[in-house]
Amino acid sequence: VAGWQDDARSTAIAADDRDPLAAVRDRFRLPDGLVYLDGNSLGALQPAIAQRVATTMTDEWGEGLIRSWNDAGWVELPGRIAARIAPLIGAATDEVAVTDSTSTNLFKVLAAGAALRPDRRVILTDDTNFPTDIYVARGLAGLTDRHEVRVVPPEDLHDHLDDEVAMLMLTEVDYRSGRRHDAPALTAAAHGVGALAVWDLAHSVGVLDVDLTAWGADLAVGCSYKFLSGGPGAPAFAFAARRHHAALVNPLAGWFGHEQPFAFDLDYRPAPGATRLLNGTAPVLSMTALEAALEAFDGLEPAAVTAKAHALTTRFIDLVDTHLDGRIEVVTPREPARRGSQVSLRHEQAYAVTRALTDRGVIGDHRPPDIVRFGFAPLYVRHLDVVEAVIRLADLLDTGAWDQPRFHERQTVT
Amino acid sequence: VAGWQDDARSTAIAADDRDPLAAVRDRFRLPDGLVYLDGNSLGALQPAIAQRVATTMTDEWGEGLIRSWNDAGWVELPGRIAARIAPLIGAATDEVAVTDSTSTNLFKVLAAGAALRPDRRVILTDDTNFPTDIYVARGLAGLTDRHEVRVVPPEDLHDHLDDEVAMLMLTEVDYRSGRRHDAPALTAAAHGVGALAVWDLAHSVGVLDVDLTAWGADLAVGCSYKFLSGGPGAPAFAFAARRHHAALVNPLAGWFGHEQPFAFDLDYRPAPGATRLLNGTAPVLSMTALEAALEAFDGLEPAAVTAKAHALTTRFIDLVDTHLDGRIEVVTPREPARRGSQVSLRHEQAYAVTRALTDRGVIGDHRPPDIVRFGFAPLYVRHLDVVEAVIRLADLLDTGAWDQPRFHERQTVT
Repeated sequence: VAGWQDDARSTAIAADDRDPLAAVRDRFRLPDGLVYLDGNSLGALQPAIAQRVATTMTDEWGEGLIRSWNDAGWVELPGRIAARIAPLIGAATDEVAVTDSTSTNLFKVLAAGAALRPDRRVILTDDTNFPTDIYVARGLAGLTDRHEVRVVPPEDLHDHLDDEVAMLMLTEVDYRSGRRHDAPALTAAAHGVGALAVWDLAHSVGVLDVDLTAWGADLAVGCSYKFLSGGPGAPAFAFAARRHHAALVNPLAGWFGHEQPFAFDLDYRPAPGATRLLNGTAPVLSMTALEAALEAFDGLEPAAVTAKAHALTTRFIDLVDTHLDGRIEVVTPREPARRGSQVSLRHEQAYAVTRALTDRGVIGDHRPPDIVRFGFAPLYVRHLDVVEAVIRLADLLDTGAWDQPRFHERQTVT
Repeated sequence: VAGWQDDARSTAIAADDRDPLAAVRDRFRLPDGLVYLDGNSLGALQPAIAQRVATTMTDEWGEGLIRSWNDAGWVELPGRIAARIAPLIGAATDEVAVTDSTSTNLFKVLAAGAALRPDRRVILTDDTNFPTDIYVARGLAGLTDRHEVRVVPPEDLHDHLDDEVAMLMLTEVDYRSGRRHDAPALTAAAHGVGALAVWDLAHSVGVLDVDLTAWGADLAVGCSYKFLSGGPGAPAFAFAARRHHAALVNPLAGWFGHEQPFAFDLDYRPAPGATRLLNGTAPVLSMTALEAALEAFDGLEPAAVTAKAHALTTRFIDLVDTHLDGRIEVVTPREPARRGSQVSLRHEQAYAVTRALTDRGVIGDHRPPDIVRFGFAPLYVRHLDVVEAVIRLADLLDTGAWDQPRFHERQTVT
């Protein structure tokens, strides 16, 4: 009864043939037969990255040794990578620092924001934010002893924006539902009460049309191991709008954020711009992988990437709506502009479904309690992958043939 | 006139033949003919590390993708590495967290220490400390608005220990002179006034007989890219004595320090012990390199490593004293127990000397204004390397044939 499946495959293959990003896929390597819809957790490998890191190890570390900080340009890695990330988020290079983890960077920009709004005590966020972001804000509040982290449902944010709010801190794309905030409107609303807008772009950068400058955003952070495919735990980034640079304070004041790191002055003089958000010595191997990964974005039109993200998620939603109706529920907004490159499905046995799908060669994520989440990395996911995922999910739901394992394994990464 | 040089070489070769660590050297790769006395800035490469990282990239990242967090044990990397570092510093595994940079870790342990001594306002340190440590302490003080960082000469530390002092924060080995503090005595003195002792082990770990438990140290941090040879910018570590765990607060509260990172609770519940000092997602490639690097310490007696460090530095000092007297000055303490595995020489044209020595195949470091610094990594430096370094330095000083370049290049790493 080869009905909708064959039709869906044919349509998808035709779409792949027309895909302006098709050539980029050749940079990536994916295991044969695997439908990988988890690039929003860990982006796929490009063999060129492995080559680059191997060279860094054997030639630069092994032969060059300490000289490679200068001769191989390790000391310039953060700046070089910032120059590659900046255009993906609508920023200038001097507004971006590549370093540390997203969590550490969030701490730094929140502390900087607190210093920019010294008379205000509230950090406002919503309960769809990634939990770590809330932990980090509370960690800062515990240290200053004068801040309160206010967590409200997203629909109540506007009601809580008042003149006590120092910062509105939000993650643009909800890691569970895939819902995308209206960042320009929320930024404007924060500014309307004199607050700063702090954005976490973890699920946005490299896939959505992020334009921090157009939004008027004040501070931001983002992650490079998801849609940027920088490698497991790749260093993150921080953004500070240029208008704040003069008063920008980094409490994690390390020598790589010093104006003259190698003068070894006892006095800290911050480097210009966002560079002062650097801290200690960067993990060069991981930084090198990230730099190499970003070459995949060379020459890509950001709008083309976003358009493909919309097309992939639309195809997925349409197929689920049409063929799996009543058996699993789409919780991601149906309007493309209101979602990330992600579709989340609700199912009572979401964990078991996720595991059984993995056994059938479709990798998504379970997010507690009842979400099966699929991310669509436009640089290497094909329309045909979308169709295969739905076909295998349909087969699985038809048979109901899954174990019901306890949710004991440690999974990762938003 | 082949006089002392040949004698010194013969004696050194005999010492190398008796060296109980000689076999370890085979794990490392150093460029032919290069005398590398900068392992205190960046430890040398072991080819096995490059192999391991290559496997992590192609098999674990490339093939395993997100599954490798569980299947390849990435999620356990910090704990596995902590178990390897702990015995090198006289700690238990649950007292050590491997993560972030030394600077970030210092910020965390200082914040934790501040919370453990809430009624005290002074962070006391000395002016031989690594400048970044002082920046970080001041960064914290700027954030809490209730701490003062007091920087005094090392000989005045005891005079400034009073009941205002929350923490005595020191780097055990002075990155410039190589002088080693009397850590047990200073820890006891801090405790004598009710303060905590916080140690930076950047130039100690992997080479000196560090025993935080015997010292009674409260908190500590350390670096893994120097004598641990973990690779450029390898992740650092933090230590918190078990007696402080119940009240240990990490202001950089990230999900990897949560009791259940993948439950995605909005409430932060800290993981047991020092694990709560973890933060965001670790840079897996750099962590993998570090884990592989530490295998070089398998089966080594820490006392044998320290003994070789003493022997190498003693040989170097003796040769300089004997043959270069009046032309360059040893500033490192001559008593082995009072120094790190480092010898610093003072010369008016230290930068030019360092550069000219590099051209002659001997790599040390310049530290402003007038120090030429040599580090001796016992795992791969031979007695013969020590002799070659002094011979080439003697030749250089004999000829005086060096340019006088301006000190404009960015150098690195303490």
